[in-house]
Amino acid sequence: MEEVKVIELKESVFADNDAEAKRVRQQLRSRGQFLVNVMSSPGSGKTTTLTRLINLLKSDYKIGVMEADIDGAVDTEDIVRDTGAKAIQLHTGGMCHLDAGMTKTGLDSLETDGLDLLFLENVGNLVCPAEFDTGASKNCVILSVPEGDDKPLKYPLMFEKADVVVLNKVDVLPYFDFDIDKFKGYLAARNPSCQVIPISAKTGEGVDELAAWVRREASAWREA
Amino acid sequence: MEEVKVIELKESVFADNDAEAKRVRQQLRSRGQFLVNVMSSPGSGKTTTLTRLINLLKSDYKIGVMEADIDGAVDTEDIVRDTGAKAIQLHTGGMCHLDAGMTKTGLDSLETDGLDLLFLENVGNLVCPAEFDTGASKNCVILSVPEGDDKPLKYPLMFEKADVVVLNKVDVLPYFDFDIDKFKGYLAARNPSCQVIPISAKTGEGVDELAAWVRREASAWREA
Repeated sequence: MEEVKVIELKESVFADNDAEAKRVRQQLRSRGQFLVNVMSSPGSGKTTTLTRLINLLKSDYKIGVMEADIDGAVDTEDIVRDTGAKAIQLHTGGMCHLDAGMTKTGLDSLETDGLDLLFLENVGNLVCPAEFDTGASKNCVILSVPEGDDKPLKYPLMFEKADVVVLNKVDVLPYFDFDIDKFKGYLAARNPSCQVIPISAKTGEGVDELAAWVRREASAWREA
Repeated sequence: MEEVKVIELKESVFADNDAEAKRVRQQLRSRGQFLVNVMSSPGSGKTTTLTRLINLLKSDYKIGVMEADIDGAVDTEDIVRDTGAKAIQLHTGGMCHLDAGMTKTGLDSLETDGLDLLFLENVGNLVCPAEFDTGASKNCVILSVPEGDDKPLKYPLMFEKADVVVLNKVDVLPYFDFDIDKFKGYLAARNPSCQVIPISAKTGEGVDELAAWVRREASAWREA
């Protein structure tokens, strides 16, 4: 396998992250590119979900992926092997999030010419990534069943920033005390308009609905 | 139920966290108090593990608990109800970690006179809490089976800082692709001397071994 391209990110020089995020978003829109920022805890299934999703979408979109991690490149290797998508690894050098400047560096390094659907797999963390607008078109938060239904109470900002919440690992619902209605209630209290899509990235259940969400939002993004 | 005491933490004024951590540790030792800093991802089972553990230890120790969260007080309510331990809630005001100064504020607010075993449940996060020495006697990292066996590769600092790693939710091992030997190998590469204790906080399996670890380390701490 071809060696994975690894970009070592540095802390951004931009004092005003929101302004830089706006510039990133404008550039994406002017190029007709839809970027989804995927955030979750470690081990919620970001990479497995992206793999399933990209395989459902790759006949219709030219897809690029940025995998952000503190260290390592296992996710990028998996994505490239399992989907064939164009992908690069971003290293945050210990930082727990990506900001808009780092996202821009990632986009430049990925070389997105000719691509129209982009995914950013953010650092596995329910706190810090929510605090920085990356400039992405939409935010997708993944929560997995084993993490518990109370997470919107404890990590409110992350769930407020979500445009869609993917509830992953529903195949193991019988083995955990996870109350979906309770979870939806906690989420709705923070983010009333947020859609919840239950999936199992392992079995593939529900991923078609997530793909439909991407298609719908990507069209709306390009037409806006 | 009595209302939970909530402390709103502010960013520490100490420029040198390591020096402040040393002071916290010296004070704990001079008072014969053993403080375990418990770190993990959101939803790994910190509170459930602590509840089980405290119920095994409470006949022999006078126990205090500090529950740190971005927001909310559900964990403290649970701990107080399920163990009767003295407990307070620390709010980090959005910060993803506790440093030594914040830990000291927590200890002062808990009023630890007469207590000899203390637990700090850190913010649910595998990145930031590892970067700050809290001044605790020992660091306990909890990883749960659903999070995956590759986490020491992706969050190396957290696993380097661990004195013990608790592998929780082993009751669901049959439903996940988690290879314990692989996990132990990844951990050993980062932290060769680190002990792994497999438990199920849900069923109670293995928690006696964790209690034995606490007893052993608390004695060693007081004799050192």
